[in-house]
Amino acid sequence: MPITEPDALSPTLQLAFDLMRRPSVTPDDEGCQALLIERLEALGFHIERLPFGEVENVWATRGHHGPVLALAGHTDVVPSGPESGWEYPPFEPRIDDDGMLCGRGASDMKGSLAAMVTAVERFVAAHPDHDGRIAFLITADEEGPAVDGTRAVVEHLRERHERLDYCIVGEPSSTARLGDVIKNGRRGSLGGVLRVKGIQGHVAYPHLARNPVHQAMPALDALARERWDNGNDFFPATSFQISNLRAGTGATNVIPGELEVVLNFRFSTEVTHDELKARTEALLDAHGLTYELDWTLNGAPFLTAEGALVDATVKGVEAVTGERPTLSTSGGTSDGRFIATLGAQVVELGPLNETIHKVNERIRADDLDTLSRIYETTLEALFVPVQEPA
Amino acid sequence: MPITEPDALSPTLQLAFDLMRRPSVTPDDEGCQALLIERLEALGFHIERLPFGEVENVWATRGHHGPVLALAGHTDVVPSGPESGWEYPPFEPRIDDDGMLCGRGASDMKGSLAAMVTAVERFVAAHPDHDGRIAFLITADEEGPAVDGTRAVVEHLRERHERLDYCIVGEPSSTARLGDVIKNGRRGSLGGVLRVKGIQGHVAYPHLARNPVHQAMPALDALARERWDNGNDFFPATSFQISNLRAGTGATNVIPGELEVVLNFRFSTEVTHDELKARTEALLDAHGLTYELDWTLNGAPFLTAEGALVDATVKGVEAVTGERPTLSTSGGTSDGRFIATLGAQVVELGPLNETIHKVNERIRADDLDTLSRIYETTLEALFVPVQEPA
Repeated sequence: MPITEPDALSPTLQLAFDLMRRPSVTPDDEGCQALLIERLEALGFHIERLPFGEVENVWATRGHHGPVLALAGHTDVVPSGPESGWEYPPFEPRIDDDGMLCGRGASDMKGSLAAMVTAVERFVAAHPDHDGRIAFLITADEEGPAVDGTRAVVEHLRERHERLDYCIVGEPSSTARLGDVIKNGRRGSLGGVLRVKGIQGHVAYPHLARNPVHQAMPALDALARERWDNGNDFFPATSFQISNLRAGTGATNVIPGELEVVLNFRFSTEVTHDELKARTEALLDAHGLTYELDWTLNGAPFLTAEGALVDATVKGVEAVTGERPTLSTSGGTSDGRFIATLGAQVVELGPLNETIHKVNERIRADDLDTLSRIYETTLEALFVPVQEPA
Repeated sequence: MPITEPDALSPTLQLAFDLMRRPSVTPDDEGCQALLIERLEALGFHIERLPFGEVENVWATRGHHGPVLALAGHTDVVPSGPESGWEYPPFEPRIDDDGMLCGRGASDMKGSLAAMVTAVERFVAAHPDHDGRIAFLITADEEGPAVDGTRAVVEHLRERHERLDYCIVGEPSSTARLGDVIKNGRRGSLGGVLRVKGIQGHVAYPHLARNPVHQAMPALDALARERWDNGNDFFPATSFQISNLRAGTGATNVIPGELEVVLNFRFSTEVTHDELKARTEALLDAHGLTYELDWTLNGAPFLTAEGALVDATVKGVEAVTGERPTLSTSGGTSDGRFIATLGAQVVELGPLNETIHKVNERIRADDLDTLSRIYETTLEALFVPVQEPA
């Protein structure tokens, strides 16, 4: 019989249930942050609400000296889609007969937030006068435009010259078993909308027209064949993709006047977005195209190749699960791209990502307790001095 | 002051007014054909109504022996668009202060039909027992799908083994002055819808996807660069154009699964449509594409390089205007493509085409009387034996 009441549950699962009951679809918070604030205030955290636009954000800190570790997460979830597609209602969390915690946000990422809070609760109880400072960076706009959330908070912290040394983002990084993958970086994402200008005309009179499709193909082919870099030990080679292409009025006898191309780079730390822009434009110019090109930098790449944070998280996973995690930079973007710009070491460590953004989102309920112990062990590795044997 | 009543007008302009008052937008005829039938019956024409589908057509013949000259035209017109864009209401014909006949169909091609009818009226009055046979092929579906109009009538005549030697299509062939251009052929038109198949995926995981845009570009570039033929004395080289192109879901982070390309050949008599299809597919195959390709033959090319009809029309224009017309095969398709398949010599000869399919369609009113004399002189050249001087 599914467990739908949290009375018999661990503190982490109880908090996860409380968060998952709130239908906090981006950018609505539905009281999730108030719940977390209440818990953090009880631990002595200093709370700052940092609303930007319609988005609620929280910056909470505990401790007064030494390096700062931020635990970062978002209370918003993606929409459920039609509830009829779900085995259980998406905002009525439960643990099914297979021991799976079911509901929107179980994996992405209310489960991680609950595990972070209970990890800190145990850590503070054991080490009330811990070294270093612990912070929480919580937003409600990770799944949406991601403009007024972490990005805005990070700019605010930058202006205040806040110190940030380490950050663990609770994104679901695990693939087959909890903790098997820690993301220690992400590729950059650079988008462009290219409009190649021609001269519209009738197909019967091609000498009076200039077909932008015909003109652009050699240039687009060259872009697709270009080797932008060779990647490095942490990143695959930068990749270029045309995601959308459109030309023509629909009429079959009209030569189009414009070709619109939406392009996207996922790029490594071997090249900068400015270099990609310049090389793209040089190539288009070399092909003699008349065009407009609007760029959008979705995120610069970041990489935490090594250091205290990677060491601590790897040690935390190994100590709790007995297995050594793999470091990876694959996959899409996350709020880690913004936080890394403060100069912090950043990793992403969270539950299995198999069901995120899908119907019937679920993770092993036990995994949340394990994840909480991993976070706690990581805090100890960073902030509890090793006692030399007497 | 504009002339809006035809009482003071020539017979040709009177008939043009009567036709232009009827808003016969494809495929509606609005009584235009009944008006023409009445005139032709009075001349002793044998009338056959040949409706196909929703389209009214007429095949009318006069005479019982010798070569057959068909005068071909359509009573349908293209829509006017918003009447507010017109200087005068499009279906209230008038002659303005500059002597221009204004209204939808003035040029394309109720004016020509009126000129043909009055030309035949004068010719029959002068030569009641003329050599040869005169026919009218009138449709109301030239501006629309062009399936149940001339195409269907031609198939019907073919099944009956009707003889057709010459055909003058009243399409507006003139460019700067009335009669300056006679079209003695048209290029063929072959359309294709190409769907290149890839594998959809996320731009962050290009190794799991296959981008059909990237795959297709070298092949499309090769198609655009291919020299299909060199044309000949009457036709420019065959041209290839991509008129529409579409790929992508709209999302910027998804590699599209399919690329749709609408392509069009305008081809000379130096190549067949089967050769164009085979060469296109061979080129796509050589590039290793997975694709579907649906072809539509809009019209085979036709050419009346020389012969009695070209001689007669050139002579007709020269005798009436004093200027020698140019022969041309440029421009779009017309119903001539269907009629030519009967083995007939076909030319197009009609008013100036500057304002066709536009708002404020208009031609010089005088030109219709001149055009009627050109048609009459052409009839005489074909069907009245030259009298040797006694």
